[in-house]
Amino acid sequence: METKILSGKKVANFLKSNLKEKISELKNDGIVPGLAVILVGDNPASKIYVNSKTNACSKLGIFSKTLIYSDDTSEKKILEVIDGLNNDKTIDGILVQMPLPSHIDESKIINRILPKKDVDGFHPINVGKLVIGEDAFVSCTPAGIIEILKYYKISTEGKHVVIVGRSNIVGKPMLNLLYQKSEFGNATVTICHSRTKNLEEITKLADILIVATGRAEMITADMVKNGVVIVDVGINRIEDSTKKKGYRLVGDVDFEGVKEKASAITPVPGGVGPMTITMLMMNTYKSSLRKK
Amino acid sequence: METKILSGKKVANFLKSNLKEKISELKNDGIVPGLAVILVGDNPASKIYVNSKTNACSKLGIFSKTLIYSDDTSEKKILEVIDGLNNDKTIDGILVQMPLPSHIDESKIINRILPKKDVDGFHPINVGKLVIGEDAFVSCTPAGIIEILKYYKISTEGKHVVIVGRSNIVGKPMLNLLYQKSEFGNATVTICHSRTKNLEEITKLADILIVATGRAEMITADMVKNGVVIVDVGINRIEDSTKKKGYRLVGDVDFEGVKEKASAITPVPGGVGPMTITMLMMNTYKSSLRKK
Repeated sequence: METKILSGKKVANFLKSNLKEKISELKNDGIVPGLAVILVGDNPASKIYVNSKTNACSKLGIFSKTLIYSDDTSEKKILEVIDGLNNDKTIDGILVQMPLPSHIDESKIINRILPKKDVDGFHPINVGKLVIGEDAFVSCTPAGIIEILKYYKISTEGKHVVIVGRSNIVGKPMLNLLYQKSEFGNATVTICHSRTKNLEEITKLADILIVATGRAEMITADMVKNGVVIVDVGINRIEDSTKKKGYRLVGDVDFEGVKEKASAITPVPGGVGPMTITMLMMNTYKSSLRKK
Repeated sequence: METKILSGKKVANFLKSNLKEKISELKNDGIVPGLAVILVGDNPASKIYVNSKTNACSKLGIFSKTLIYSDDTSEKKILEVIDGLNNDKTIDGILVQMPLPSHIDESKIINRILPKKDVDGFHPINVGKLVIGEDAFVSCTPAGIIEILKYYKISTEGKHVVIVGRSNIVGKPMLNLLYQKSEFGNATVTICHSRTKNLEEITKLADILIVATGRAEMITADMVKNGVVIVDVGINRIEDSTKKKGYRLVGDVDFEGVKEKASAITPVPGGVGPMTITMLMMNTYKSSLRKK
């Protein structure tokens, strides 16, 4: 059996090329989508993420504004900045790069963003609408995974999907998307996490296994059944003296081992990763359509 | 093995007796919890539900106000009524009895209720907060099921809970409660529904099986494993000429058959049913504490 490699990079490029065209057409209506990114502190990883996001914006014709504050900035100040962006007509999406310094309450910050500008899909009202089945901004990584499945025509209807990981950003919204009465929903879904007993008994049941735990290569070949579709959300650095940088990137799944049994699998890197920013761009575009 | 009967009636009485005392103590602070119930049209079942709710209020010392409108009342009118109750200081909880006549958009009505007075836990912001793990009003039936498990000391930690049914009122909030990092959470949870294939293969895995489908006696003994804990949310009428009324009430589970294999089971009636109104009373009390 040949294992299909699910290239998120390919799907992302396909979607971005469509999106670029749509954004270009919006100019006829005098609309330019705008994204504001707030960064507090100088976490190097966060800076890289923010750069990738603003680069994606400029390539697609989305206006972006990056606001960088020192890590001793008060919560009050950030809330005021959000209020300003909420009222700024050039801005359709507001994103606060996580994590924030510990003196700032993340949930307070998220709850201050107008739900209609919450392109990350983290505001409780967007989370709630997703669950209820109403139109909402959906967290970018789970939304991107649905797009990968769509692109490769991997139906979820009646399938047993097992999710490992219960984060607010990936596991929970993924779960709540997949059982919905919708074309790429209607799955029987199981959510596992650190307290799950006999994890391998559950993962072996999966027709589609989605892993987002941040634990390098924790899913091994003996934990999956033949023909499984694997979606690996993890990106972990592990030491590797044979590499120039001294490390290599691996997922939460032991790719080489599991590949032999899987009918399809996302690689790391180049799998789910590229989809996240793409969906952020899609959400920002979608938000700008309000101005039509 | 003796099968434990999980009497929701008993748990409800226990909780209500505590609650009555707490509400009585609130009087020292000059606080009387208040619940407003809106009924549109004359659906006989809805009338019975509304009566049960207001009766429960009066027994516990909660002020209640029932507003009954004819079924040709406009959506606009109901929205105005909600606005009034949102601003009414004597009212801590607002409940709109479902279903509404078809010319009224249920989600519009629910979204108009102030989240802090949404004692049914149906507003997207309460649903979202529950998912994220923040303090929220939780839909009464799932909240009541957690109370039954607590009362009978049935731990969910690391257990495999299977839920059959994906309604906004029961299945979805039940799912999102049970995987949370909390004392009666931390379960591995699977959600099944009408599109699930091989349902009996999934239900057989359950340590705890929660059924809310509205399909009479659909879960039979061959679909569960020995020692399972069964929570039956269904209340269905089936014809029975031996009864005076010509029908009897049964759950979604074939009680007599399944009882032999279950270690514990909720009966119908007297199981989950009595908990729903009790949790509504608890939520209304909780809401009134804002006034302290």
